[in-house]
Amino acid sequence: EKRPKKDYSFSNRGKTLEDEINETNDYYMQQGTAVIHKKPVPIQVVKVEYPSRSAAVIKEAYYRTASTTDFNGVWQGLHVDFEAKETKNKTSFPLKNIHAHQIDHMRLVTQQKGLTFLIVRFSLINRYFVLPYSPLQDAWDEMCKGGRKSIPFEFFEQNAFEIVPGAYPPIDYLRGVTKMLSEESAKQ
Amino acid sequence: EKRPKKDYSFSNRGKTLEDEINETNDYYMQQGTAVIHKKPVPIQVVKVEYPSRSAAVIKEAYYRTASTTDFNGVWQGLHVDFEAKETKNKTSFPLKNIHAHQIDHMRLVTQQKGLTFLIVRFSLINRYFVLPYSPLQDAWDEMCKGGRKSIPFEFFEQNAFEIVPGAYPPIDYLRGVTKMLSEESAKQ
Ligand SMILES: [Mg+2]
Ligand SMILES: [Mg+2]
Repeated sequence: EKRPKKDYSFSNRGKTLEDEINETNDYYMQQGTAVIHKKPVPIQVVKVEYPSRSAAVIKEAYYRTASTTDFNGVWQGLHVDFEAKETKNKTSFPLKNIHAHQIDHMRLVTQQKGLTFLIVRFSLINRYFVLPYSPLQDAWDEMCKGGRKSIPFEFFEQNAFEIVPGAYPPIDYLRGVTKMLSEESAKQ
Repeated sequence: EKRPKKDYSFSNRGKTLEDEINETNDYYMQQGTAVIHKKPVPIQVVKVEYPSRSAAVIKEAYYRTASTTDFNGVWQGLHVDFEAKETKNKTSFPLKNIHAHQIDHMRLVTQQKGLTFLIVRFSLINRYFVLPYSPLQDAWDEMCKGGRKSIPFEFFEQNAFEIVPGAYPPIDYLRGVTKMLSEESAKQ
């Protein structure tokens, strides 16, 4: 029974998924549940000026591609590491939203016994899922072998753990991760 | 017996401590030992230009103070989270190198059963130490109560785990952390 009761009365009210996760992480920190942060965006600084008596000003810089995932931290002894993506697509999640080096990173984290997953928001229908690394890797490998370039919505319903949005925290994703862990341990 | 045999034949050859840790982390990744990364420097972007047919250029941005530590990752199921600092001082480590919010972060990580510590390089004498969170917190609390604003070198010799620099990896700090863990478990 991995499908929670649904209550979609809380809409995301125009917030980005990143905002919702940051607010949820603040809540987890206040409650003493977990310490999880968004990593800063990697930026290549080319030119800096140092005006006297004031802060250094970066005058030329470029965004770099992230080589890892967006969020990580620690949750009651577990290393947690995940990527979060939203899509306006209603029927599938396009895999072009994920980079090969992020999949590589997730594989390495899994080998080190870290907990890694993908959070996907289907923004137009306001539904959220925690997709474990293993089915994500399967879908990725399929694509690399010439298979489909997106993950169907039904695949999420079958292989992912739905997060029901709320007021505060906006998306209690660790509840989905808890279900994922108990299902994994039941399988063993 | 926490003092290793010393061999100071490997100097840092002008590399920064951050470079040495990054190289060590690359080595750990290649060996399958751990997946640990430097977090990007947090930058507040104010103005961006989008020239046609080329990458976005950041034209105005500022460095922000980091609210966490510099490095984190996962090592065989353990969440690892640390700050690294070098000093040219030979007799003590000035605590002004650490920010209050970094100590707060380390306390929270410890509460979540993450492994957190400080790596210090005394650059002029080429000696490196892994200082566990607990004695660091003690020294910090002392300072806050009006005590000394630096940690004496002898305190490192007594309470930290020395890392002997090498060719590759340049500083095998997980060896120091392993000693720290075995000493902690021996105490219990
Ligand atoms: Mg991302
Ligand atoms: Mg720092």
